[in-house]
Amino acid sequence: MPRKATASSKSSPRGARIRTHVRVMLDEEIAMGPGKADLLEAIRDTGSISAAGKQLGMSYRRAWLLVDTMNRCFKTPLVETSAGGVAGGGARISVAGEDMLRRYRALETAIAKITEKGFGDIKPMLRRSPQLPTSRE
Amino acid sequence: MPRKATASSKSSPRGARIRTHVRVMLDEEIAMGPGKADLLEAIRDTGSISAAGKQLGMSYRRAWLLVDTMNRCFKTPLVETSAGGVAGGGARISVAGEDMLRRYRALETAIAKITEKGFGDIKPMLRRSPQLPTSRE
Repeated sequence: MPRKATASSKSSPRGARIRTHVRVMLDEEIAMGPGKADLLEAIRDTGSISAAGKQLGMSYRRAWLLVDTMNRCFKTPLVETSAGGVAGGGARISVAGEDMLRRYRALETAIAKITEKGFGDIKPMLRRSPQLPTSRE
Repeated sequence: MPRKATASSKSSPRGARIRTHVRVMLDEEIAMGPGKADLLEAIRDTGSISAAGKQLGMSYRRAWLLVDTMNRCFKTPLVETSAGGVAGGGARISVAGEDMLRRYRALETAIAKITEKGFGDIKPMLRRSPQLPTSRE
């Protein structure tokens, strides 16, 4: 089957690179991952779930669900909401949240170091750009 | 070496664990990732794209597209198809394909080692299971 040559116009990254995603799973939930770590940082920086969500381009509902998932997975909630309730009040990350964030980022950094080293062996085998898709028929 | 068919075993894993996905990107294409590495191994073991796809629970079309993407991203094709053509004939992984697979698996192993170490710091903070979702209203 012929595949359309998709020339997407949005400025996507070019060239050869390596991406590593680390996800901490608890049963079927993602307890911690790249999006949740970014959200924790944004809550720390903005003091609110909705401002943090806005900063990351996610809806309030999505940000709230990510916070809820994290809090349900850890022994101590990573995010604390203060007076005014979840909708109106502020939010901040707990000591456990700071701690978790530090451990997760440290793991990401360690992985990035290993990854860059391994990528050095892989990159020379890659073209500069992919060839166009092969038409099958 | 037949690898366990992960695709159809739907009993979802339980408990706390960490997952790391490594993807080699070239422009917008995934040149190499967990699915493509598994497919390379299955082609090596079965000698055909369609048998490899079947072993991994993917359609022939999907397996073919993954092979095409890999081959378009690397200087030397990772999979060679032999007489009979793509539809009927056999397939095998090239020397470059073996080489790439080895480098990718080595990188995964190095990352897994780091990851397990880092996960030792994270796991004690997790519950045994997530609490039930909070009702928002």
